[in-house]
Amino acid sequence: MSTKTNPGNYFEDFRVGMNIVHATPRTLTEGDASLYIALYGSRFPVQSSSAFARSLGLRGAPLDDMLLFHVVFGKTVPDISLNAVANLGYSSGRFHAPAYPGDTISTVSEVIGLKENSNGKTGTVYVRSTGSNQRNDTVLEYVRWVMVRKKDANSPAPEAVVPELPKAVPIAELNVPSGLALSGYDTDLAGSTFLWDDYHVGERVDHVDAMTVEESDHMIATRLYQNTAKVHFNQHTEKDGRFGRRIVYGGHIISLARSFSFNGLANSFKIVAINGGRHVAPVFAGDTVYAWSEVLGKDDLADRSDLGILRLRLVATKDKNCASFPYKNSEGKYDPAVVLEFDYTVLMPRERQ
Amino acid sequence: MSTKTNPGNYFEDFRVGMNIVHATPRTLTEGDASLYIALYGSRFPVQSSSAFARSLGLRGAPLDDMLLFHVVFGKTVPDISLNAVANLGYSSGRFHAPAYPGDTISTVSEVIGLKENSNGKTGTVYVRSTGSNQRNDTVLEYVRWVMVRKKDANSPAPEAVVPELPKAVPIAELNVPSGLALSGYDTDLAGSTFLWDDYHVGERVDHVDAMTVEESDHMIATRLYQNTAKVHFNQHTEKDGRFGRRIVYGGHIISLARSFSFNGLANSFKIVAINGGRHVAPVFAGDTVYAWSEVLGKDDLADRSDLGILRLRLVATKDKNCASFPYKNSEGKYDPAVVLEFDYTVLMPRERQ
Amino acid sequence: MSTKTNPGNYFEDFRVGMNIVHATPRTLTEGDASLYIALYGSRFPVQSSSAFARSLGLRGAPLDDMLLFHVVFGKTVPDISLNAVANLGYSSGRFHAPAYPGDTISTVSEVIGLKENSNGKTGTVYVRSTGSNQRNDTVLEYVRWVMVRKKDANSPAPEAVVPELPKAVPIAELNVPSGLALSGYDTDLAGSTFLWDDYHVGERVDHVDAMTVEESDHMIATRLYQNTAKVHFNQHTEKDGRFGRRIVYGGHIISLARSFSFNGLANSFKIVAINGGRHVAPVFAGDTVYAWSEVLGKDDLADRSDLGILRLRLVATKDKNCASFPYKNSEGKYDPAVVLEFDYTVLMPRERQ
Repeated sequence: MSTKTNPGNYFEDFRVGMNIVHATPRTLTEGDASLYIALYGSRFPVQSSSAFARSLGLRGAPLDDMLLFHVVFGKTVPDISLNAVANLGYSSGRFHAPAYPGDTISTVSEVIGLKENSNGKTGTVYVRSTGSNQRNDTVLEYVRWVMVRKKDANSPAPEAVVPELPKAVPIAELNVPSGLALSGYDTDLAGSTFLWDDYHVGERVDHVDAMTVEESDHMIATRLYQNTAKVHFNQHTEKDGRFGRRIVYGGHIISLARSFSFNGLANSFKIVAINGGRHVAPVFAGDTVYAWSEVLGKDDLADRSDLGILRLRLVATKDKNCASFPYKNSEGKYDPAVVLEFDYTVLMPRERQ
Repeated sequence: MSTKTNPGNYFEDFRVGMNIVHATPRTLTEGDASLYIALYGSRFPVQSSSAFARSLGLRGAPLDDMLLFHVVFGKTVPDISLNAVANLGYSSGRFHAPAYPGDTISTVSEVIGLKENSNGKTGTVYVRSTGSNQRNDTVLEYVRWVMVRKKDANSPAPEAVVPELPKAVPIAELNVPSGLALSGYDTDLAGSTFLWDDYHVGERVDHVDAMTVEESDHMIATRLYQNTAKVHFNQHTEKDGRFGRRIVYGGHIISLARSFSFNGLANSFKIVAINGGRHVAPVFAGDTVYAWSEVLGKDDLADRSDLGILRLRLVATKDKNCASFPYKNSEGKYDPAVVLEFDYTVLMPRERQ
Repeated sequence: MSTKTNPGNYFEDFRVGMNIVHATPRTLTEGDASLYIALYGSRFPVQSSSAFARSLGLRGAPLDDMLLFHVVFGKTVPDISLNAVANLGYSSGRFHAPAYPGDTISTVSEVIGLKENSNGKTGTVYVRSTGSNQRNDTVLEYVRWVMVRKKDANSPAPEAVVPELPKAVPIAELNVPSGLALSGYDTDLAGSTFLWDDYHVGERVDHVDAMTVEESDHMIATRLYQNTAKVHFNQHTEKDGRFGRRIVYGGHIISLARSFSFNGLANSFKIVAINGGRHVAPVFAGDTVYAWSEVLGKDDLADRSDLGILRLRLVATKDKNCASFPYKNSEGKYDPAVVLEFDYTVLMPRERQ
C-alpha cells in the first residue's frame, strides 16, 4: 500500500506561524468568466463587458470578485479543511489589484491562531490566506477559521492563540482599483439609476430573484474552483452521513445571493472587503435560494467624489422568499429559513455633482 | 422597505415609439462558444473551427448565430417580458455582421405595436430589438410580440397599433458576411456532400438525433444568456404554478433542434434570417427533444454562384421521434408532440460549376 | 423523405485500408480547458497554470491530454461507431506535440482490421485514428476496435484481418514535448514531493477521492466532445433499452479516474501513451466513481536525468471505495464493482541528483 495520498492536516499538525504553500496555481481565463455567468447568471456590467469596464478606466472586464475568492479558497481545502468538521467564519477579507483573464493565481496560508475544544477531539484553526498573481501582487487576502478534527484525542492541546479580528475592514485599508474613474458610468447600461447617494443605512432590499440548486450546478462550480471537499461530491458516502445527501459548497450560496443582489443593488459593481460571514445552515440540491440585503454602513472617501462605499449584509434563505426579510428573532435566533449571512463592502458610483 | 428592485414593465407602461436601452452589455468570448457546444453538441464546422472559418474568408470562427440571438433576447427580458404571460411570436429577424469572440453586445428595443386584449387584463406588446457590437454595428435585429399583464385592469386601453410584419424576410434584405467565399468549402470536413443544389422545396428531413433535457442543462444555458425569467429557475414557486414545474426557456429548444439539424443539413452553415417562430407547447426537464425540417423555399443570389439560400421550417417534438414528420393535422391542429416551429433562412454552398 | 441523414457505417461498409476523413474540425480554446476542469476537477498544475507550464519550458498550459483524446475520439463516432454494439478496446495510443488553446484538431481514421463474428450479425472493426492540428502535425494517434452491426446478415464475410497490437507502446516511440525541462519543477505548487524515484513497480495507490455522476455532467462533457452516440443522450429510447437508462460515455469515467489520481500521483503530469483500456461495465447517473492505480512499469530515458516514465494501470469502480484495490479474483474475473481498467504511460519528474 502506498502512503502517497494526501491525508490532509489534523488539528495537531498546525502550529501558529506556520506557512503553507497550497498546490495547483491556476490561470483564470475567459472560460472561467463564462462559466461563472453560466453558474450564477450574474449581470454586473463591469464583469460582463470589457467595453463597459474600459469606459471606467480598467484594462478590461475583471474576473468576478467571488470567482477569485472561490479559487483562492479552493486551493486551501486540501491543506486546511480536508479534516474539518465545520467552516466557522470569515474575516478581514480584502481585495487588492483586480484579477483579469490570463492571471495565474497561487495561494499561501499562515496559521494565525489555534484553540483546542474542551471535548479534546477537535480544535479551531485560524488561517490568513493570501492569493497572488503571476507578478506576486496580492489579489486577495482573508482570514477564515475552521473546526478541525484531531488525529489523536490524547495529543496535548497547544497554547490557545485566538487572533483579534476586526468586525469590519477599516475604510482606510480598502483598495480602489488604480485608474478607476466613474465619470463615464452609464446607468442605462448598468440597469439601475440608484447610486450611492440613494441608499441609506438600515435600508433593506428584497432581491426577489431565486434559483433552485441542482446537483450538477454546485458540483460543476466546486470542481471549477478545484475544491476537493468530499461532502460536495460523494453521494455513496454522504447517503450514510449526517444529512443523507451531498452538501452544497457554502461559497456557491454566496455567489447565488450576490448575483440576485443585482436586482436592487445593480450598481454595487465591485467588492472591496469581506468583513465576515457565516454559513448558518446547509443547502442541498432541490433547495431554492432567495436573498435580501441590508445597508449596514455608508462612507465616502476623502479624495473621491465619484464613488462611495456601502457595507452590506447579504442574507440568503432557502425555500422562503425574502419579502419579510427573514433574519433573527428577538432572542437572536436565526429564522429557520436562513442559510447564510455575509457582511461585505462594495464600491458604488455617486451622483454627479 | 426599498423600491429599488426592478418591477419590470406592465402593459400600460409601454408606448408606441418608446425606446428602451437594456442593461448589461456582454462581451462574448471563446468561453461562451465552448459552453454553447457543451450545451447543444452543435457540429457546424464554421462555428467549431477557426481554421475552417478562415478558409472561407472569415476572420475566425464566428459565434453561433443562435447564441447571439439568446444573448440579445436575454437582455430584453427584464424590461419587456418580466410580467409577460406568453411569448407569442418572432418576425423579421436579420443577422448582420457576424459576431466574434471578444465582441461586446448591447441591446435596445423600440415598441412598435400595442393592442389590449378584450379581457382588459393583458395586452400584446410588439418590440423591435436590435443587438449591436462595440463599434455600434448592428449584429442582429428581430421583432417579437409578447402578452404582458396590466398592472391595473382599470387603466384605459391605448389606441391599438398592430405592425404589419412580413411572412419572411425578403431575399434582398439578407446579409451575406463580407469576404465570405465558398470556393474552398471542404465537404469532407463539413460532414456532408449535400449542397444547396441537392435540396428541393417540400423536402423533409428527419434529424434522428435527440436529447433529454435536464434541469441543470437548461438553467446553465439560460443563465449564460443572463435571461432572468423566473419560470425557468424557481421550483419553489413553480411547484404551485400552472405546470408544477420549471419551464425550459423556449430558445433552448430552438438551439437543440438547430443542433440536431446538422444531421441532414450539415452545410446550412449560417443563419441569415428568422422569419417566424412559435413555442407551441412547453418543455420540461425529463422531456426528450427530437426535430425535423422542411425546405420551404430556395433562392439563388443574383451575384453569387458559390452559395444559395434555403428557407427552412424546423419542427421540434418531445418524446416522439420525427420519422413521421409530426406537425399539424388536416384541421390545422398541432400534433400533441410538437413543441416548436421555427421558420428561418440559411446560406448553403452550391455545387461547383 | 430525405436520405441526407447520416446512417453511419455498418460492418460491411468497412474495407481494410480504407481512409475516413471525419467531420467538424474543432478549435479547442481556453473555454474548453475551463470546462474540462469544471467537469472533472483536475488539479495537475501543468494543465492548470500557464505560469507553471512556462517554468518547464512549454509555451503555456497545454490542453489536458484526455480532453484531446475525447475530441479526437468524438469525431470518429459518426463514421465508426454509430452502429456499434460495443467499444471493445484501445491500443497503441501515442501523444505527439502538445495541443494548446487555439489549436484546431481534425481526425482521420484508417481501417486496419476486420473480423466478422460467427453469429453473422456483427463484426469487429479495427481503426487507427489520427488527430492533427492546423499545421498538420499529429497530436495523437491510437487504435481502437469496436463491434459493429451488419446491415444485412446475408452479406458475405470479408477476409479476416486482425492487426498485431503491442501490449504497450515501446519506450523508444514515446514523445517528450520539445523544450520540456524539469529542473524548475516546484513540488510545493505541484502538491506532492513524491517523484519518479519514489515509486516502485507493483505499488498500488488508492486515490480516495470520488464523485457521483449526474446526467447533466456526462451529457455536457459528451456534447463538448461533439460525440453523438445516442445511448448517452436519449432517455426516451433508452428507457426501453438494455439498461433502461442512458449510459455514461466511457471516456468520462477515464477522465474522472485520471483526475482522482492526482491524489497519490500528483506529479504524473503528462500522459505520453495509452497502452490499452477496457470499459468493464457501464456507468449510469447516480453511480459514484472511485479509482486506484498500480505501477506496472518504470523506465528511465537514456538522455534525460530530469524525468522518468511510469506505466500505470488505472482502475475505476462504482459505489465501492478502493481501499482494498478491487480488480480481478483468482480466476481472472473482475470484481463486480470494477467499471474501467486503463493502461497508460506518464512522464514524471525525477529527484534532482
